[in-house]
Amino acid sequence: MSNAFGERFRIVTFGESHGPAVGVVVDGCPAGVPFGPEDLDAALARDVPDRLVGTPRREPNRAEVLSGVFEGATLGTPVAIVVRNEDARSRDYEARREVPRPGHGDLTWRQRYGRADWRGGGRASGRECVARLAAGALAAKVLDAVGVHVAGRVTEMAGVRVRSAADYARAQARVLEVAREGDSTGGLVRVTADGLPAGLGDPVFDKLHAVLGHALLSIGGVKSFEVGLGRRHARRRGSESNDPYELDAEGEVRTRGNRCGGVQGGISNGMRLVVDVAVKPTPSIPRAQESVDLEAREPAEVAASGRFDLNFAPRVAVVAEAMTAVCLVDRLVCAGEVHPLRLDASPLLRRRAGVAPDGGEPVR
Amino acid sequence: MSNAFGERFRIVTFGESHGPAVGVVVDGCPAGVPFGPEDLDAALARDVPDRLVGTPRREPNRAEVLSGVFEGATLGTPVAIVVRNEDARSRDYEARREVPRPGHGDLTWRQRYGRADWRGGGRASGRECVARLAAGALAAKVLDAVGVHVAGRVTEMAGVRVRSAADYARAQARVLEVAREGDSTGGLVRVTADGLPAGLGDPVFDKLHAVLGHALLSIGGVKSFEVGLGRRHARRRGSESNDPYELDAEGEVRTRGNRCGGVQGGISNGMRLVVDVAVKPTPSIPRAQESVDLEAREPAEVAASGRFDLNFAPRVAVVAEAMTAVCLVDRLVCAGEVHPLRLDASPLLRRRAGVAPDGGEPVR
Amino acid sequence: MSNAFGERFRIVTFGESHGPAVGVVVDGCPAGVPFGPEDLDAALARDVPDRLVGTPRREPNRAEVLSGVFEGATLGTPVAIVVRNEDARSRDYEARREVPRPGHGDLTWRQRYGRADWRGGGRASGRECVARLAAGALAAKVLDAVGVHVAGRVTEMAGVRVRSAADYARAQARVLEVAREGDSTGGLVRVTADGLPAGLGDPVFDKLHAVLGHALLSIGGVKSFEVGLGRRHARRRGSESNDPYELDAEGEVRTRGNRCGGVQGGISNGMRLVVDVAVKPTPSIPRAQESVDLEAREPAEVAASGRFDLNFAPRVAVVAEAMTAVCLVDRLVCAGEVHPLRLDASPLLRRRAGVAPDGGEPVR
Amino acid sequence: MSNAFGERFRIVTFGESHGPAVGVVVDGCPAGVPFGPEDLDAALARDVPDRLVGTPRREPNRAEVLSGVFEGATLGTPVAIVVRNEDARSRDYEARREVPRPGHGDLTWRQRYGRADWRGGGRASGRECVARLAAGALAAKVLDAVGVHVAGRVTEMAGVRVRSAADYARAQARVLEVAREGDSTGGLVRVTADGLPAGLGDPVFDKLHAVLGHALLSIGGVKSFEVGLGRRHARRRGSESNDPYELDAEGEVRTRGNRCGGVQGGISNGMRLVVDVAVKPTPSIPRAQESVDLEAREPAEVAASGRFDLNFAPRVAVVAEAMTAVCLVDRLVCAGEVHPLRLDASPLLRRRAGVAPDGGEPVR
Repeated sequence: MSNAFGERFRIVTFGESHGPAVGVVVDGCPAGVPFGPEDLDAALARDVPDRLVGTPRREPNRAEVLSGVFEGATLGTPVAIVVRNEDARSRDYEARREVPRPGHGDLTWRQRYGRADWRGGGRASGRECVARLAAGALAAKVLDAVGVHVAGRVTEMAGVRVRSAADYARAQARVLEVAREGDSTGGLVRVTADGLPAGLGDPVFDKLHAVLGHALLSIGGVKSFEVGLGRRHARRRGSESNDPYELDAEGEVRTRGNRCGGVQGGISNGMRLVVDVAVKPTPSIPRAQESVDLEAREPAEVAASGRFDLNFAPRVAVVAEAMTAVCLVDRLVCAGEVHPLRLDASPLLRRRAGVAPDGGEPVR
Repeated sequence: MSNAFGERFRIVTFGESHGPAVGVVVDGCPAGVPFGPEDLDAALARDVPDRLVGTPRREPNRAEVLSGVFEGATLGTPVAIVVRNEDARSRDYEARREVPRPGHGDLTWRQRYGRADWRGGGRASGRECVARLAAGALAAKVLDAVGVHVAGRVTEMAGVRVRSAADYARAQARVLEVAREGDSTGGLVRVTADGLPAGLGDPVFDKLHAVLGHALLSIGGVKSFEVGLGRRHARRRGSESNDPYELDAEGEVRTRGNRCGGVQGGISNGMRLVVDVAVKPTPSIPRAQESVDLEAREPAEVAASGRFDLNFAPRVAVVAEAMTAVCLVDRLVCAGEVHPLRLDASPLLRRRAGVAPDGGEPVR
Repeated sequence: MSNAFGERFRIVTFGESHGPAVGVVVDGCPAGVPFGPEDLDAALARDVPDRLVGTPRREPNRAEVLSGVFEGATLGTPVAIVVRNEDARSRDYEARREVPRPGHGDLTWRQRYGRADWRGGGRASGRECVARLAAGALAAKVLDAVGVHVAGRVTEMAGVRVRSAADYARAQARVLEVAREGDSTGGLVRVTADGLPAGLGDPVFDKLHAVLGHALLSIGGVKSFEVGLGRRHARRRGSESNDPYELDAEGEVRTRGNRCGGVQGGISNGMRLVVDVAVKPTPSIPRAQESVDLEAREPAEVAASGRFDLNFAPRVAVVAEAMTAVCLVDRLVCAGEVHPLRLDASPLLRRRAGVAPDGGEPVR
Repeated sequence: MSNAFGERFRIVTFGESHGPAVGVVVDGCPAGVPFGPEDLDAALARDVPDRLVGTPRREPNRAEVLSGVFEGATLGTPVAIVVRNEDARSRDYEARREVPRPGHGDLTWRQRYGRADWRGGGRASGRECVARLAAGALAAKVLDAVGVHVAGRVTEMAGVRVRSAADYARAQARVLEVAREGDSTGGLVRVTADGLPAGLGDPVFDKLHAVLGHALLSIGGVKSFEVGLGRRHARRRGSESNDPYELDAEGEVRTRGNRCGGVQGGISNGMRLVVDVAVKPTPSIPRAQESVDLEAREPAEVAASGRFDLNFAPRVAVVAEAMTAVCLVDRLVCAGEVHPLRLDASPLLRRRAGVAPDGGEPVR
């Protein structure tokens, strides 16, 4: 279904950009996950992480948890979270409702459903990502409990490679420079996860990176997905592409290096998970673009009004982190590492806490 | 679930490389799709399309349809197809069953399930792709009927860009040259689809390219996925990334150019669908690689015995085409373009045949 | 998943009895279904249809549609509906939180999740049915459009068979009489659907009555499900159980009689759908019942405080009607009779409107 | 989907009655389940448990396991099982292919798909149950390992209540007597499960008895489903319907009595699971029945030729047992009691073996 993601830890999102609210229902979250308003607030505060290059729309992102949480922790029942839309300005979009914006889904959405909410992109708006962030906030609490840490960051913006704060400042400057020319820029985002156990990812169709690819390619504006060396594998030799095995100091088997990005045969191997995505430039630009008036059936120009990001790679970094968290919790439940009903009965949590699941010594 | 793919036109595959058989059950294929042994034979004959760079394993790939087809056409019931494994040589793998091969899933598979069929990679073998080809053969018949054509081809092999037969011959020579050095090579594959209607792809999580990404990243050895300009979008400006709209000679709206690869806002726009994937070099190489003996807990070397491809990009091209076909039929059913029960009642088929679904003129 | 139902027209409900709200997200509703607040209000007003035998809890059931509806009709995006809990009295439940009420899920819920919201039954409360009613209100609008009519009614209450208003009054009197003795009563409910096309219901596992059985048995307090003659088939002979075929005045084939309740081989045959369920007596009764104090580990008595129905068969009749509507819309979409994306493109709607789907005469 | 059942332990069946084979793919079976040909043979030998009242069709039911089992135990990969049809006599059905048999799905199937395999009922034949038995054989092995025992038996046949072998003999005699009159009979079947842990069954839509109802109502000829007292609850008072709680000798809480059939609030409570279904009389009877010739559009008579059961309650008992086993394994995995990947890591198995899952004393 279009608006749901996940097999066991399953999210369903809803909401149009200029409708009353956006939100999410998380079905399949185990009981006992500590979750409070502060967790949600912190997550939603990252919605526009870089105010310099991000949209001027100022949403307070006040979230309300309608169900599934009691006395500070989850119940095992669906967690419904609603975030009101409070700073929508629909009139910005009214004049051009018959002129599809290039690079947006305005036309295809209408072709699909026969009608659409034209206000601010409707459900196709980046606004829907707030629901992903809310789900990600809950997922991150599960991951915290079992010692997994996910992080998304911009690795390139407006053509500037970003490895340091100084790089990032240069990239911001470049974004603004192009914006002054009436145009926009894109970038690259990397998501990593540390602390994953080996064994995640279902062989054949639901390989770990295939499911992650699905999750991240579903974020608006993401145009590619790579795991480990990704596309660069194509030009390597086998001997430069494989990760040799070795024994570590404790006598455990591991790969030397991590060209595979933590996934072998579609299954996590216990190394850092590394995936990369490309973010296209913001399709809304002040410069006039050629389009067509669908009613008049004649050419028309469209220049962005409304409010939009100059570059949305920073926002994608945050959303990609959230989606990865959602995806990994789901995979942990599917693999039996997180208990489907009770967080405290999770084998991974017990191993991390040094409590053996089988009554013996801590598992090696 | 690990071994199933698709929502409405849903495939479940099974089989280990050296077990009795591999196969697929297709559930949700509409009735009335013409399907005969010759369709299957033709599809499975492409399993190793390039014998020069492909595996020397010689499988006759004799397929048997066990159900769902009657008097030359599908019944609407599950179509079960079985292909026997006839040329397995398990003893090639016996000596090294405790030494995981770098770049393979040998170790992670064991970590996941606690045990594995070590013979020829078991279910993690490329052999499982035969089941995908069988499903693709049926999907292709549905697509034929509604005027959609999918094609996969190698666009780069062993570092040689392939645009012509001469290019391909040069690429083959390069594969063999590297093989003589005891190493292997990778490549790039492109899949295109023509004749798709606009409106395919579910907004939000099941965007057309997200689902396709899932499908293609699930093929063994695929390490990246791109739609349209893909990763190159990251360095473009908005004005160079968007596809402007125009009116064609018949007064229909279309994009000028196809930077988006036929997908806007996650939904097909009626243009050619274009996606690219990177294929890693064959992990099995004659050259010795470092590994570990899991029983002895000591370093061990492994050099490929058994039979393997020198370069498997040509095989991925065929499998990626099959998976795209499966995926598109599923999306066509989900979008109501192919009727879920009876092929001849499909709106797309009727439109293509000039028969209006609503009693009036052929739909524009 | 526990909190979702349906394949294509899929509902996810959420909410605890004494939490902030209950609600539903309907994913997969086609665009163009007229839906307004008045539809919801009318549906939710039926929550406690018989105030004489129903709970004294007085919920205004004010519903808010948060998404998926624009300018009076659905968009094809998820329809999220929230109903606030406004008349909860949690303190009624506090004293006995360690003493599970016989006939309720208090204990099993705790056994499953390790914790539970003890206030008013939490998510196990009949209060969750409000979300089903909201979903049913939307489903009923789809059914209206295609000429299908569903109705649920009490056929027996407190042992009194109900065929007339006078019967019902007698049954109410009997309910009150037993209530005065500190006890409660149950009943039987029948749901019928008229106007269904032939061909609904997936053979083998998702036979029409199997899916309906799933839907209706999921309603709290429902203990049996029967289709057509149901259990009575067991004592009939084949010649008294089969429905012979005949030609009607228009030359159409139909069954004479309807012992099968409109379903043959798991598929609807175009006759009236008839299913029956049994509703148990309200488990909460004023009379003291034996239980155990889970903390003290000693016997304890429990007598119902809080507010409860004297007999909830009338409420089940309404909820069963709603669930049947949800289920039938889903089956209509699965069978291709209702278009998955656009209501106005639905073959069934076109046939009923006398517009042929294939450009010819109205379909016979 | 029509031909699949289960969420985590998921079966897909295929096959027409007179096609090459019937079979099943079980996806999601954990690794390490001992499974051999003898298990399958034993299960399939029960296909026609009572030769006196069962069909004279003599199928050797030779099954072949094509995948997923290696060295005597499951691998965690899909287990594909094929059973050839060897005793089909299609010509018996040829003459009346245009005359739908009353009580069968002949007509509705055609209405749904536009075409059908008319030979022996095609996929609508009871023959499809062999695939359920094969799946049940594997499920039973999982249940054995964790100490759960499922049993199905006939409790009434041809109107004769069956509590003893002598009763059963009387019932057989009655079946034959009615058969001599050219007619057929039905019966009642009960399935019980012992050893189930508390906590199975997802609240709200996937209550344990709702999912079981779905499973059992999907068996051909089953017309009702009841849990515990079932329909009789409708005429009881609350005090006669609830099960009071008490402490047992070990200080554990349990219900006194089992009116609920082991399910409270949709969740298992650790008591015996008890469900009942009604089986209709065999629709095929030697006596002439009224039907219609679909081609000639005129009345026609049909009398059963082909081979059929005189009473198929005994066969339903076996299939209902198999479906219950499949369903319970699925619920055990969903509840985290059976590990999704490795049987030996299952908490329930460890508890039953006296090994605590949490490093302490055996769990009370």
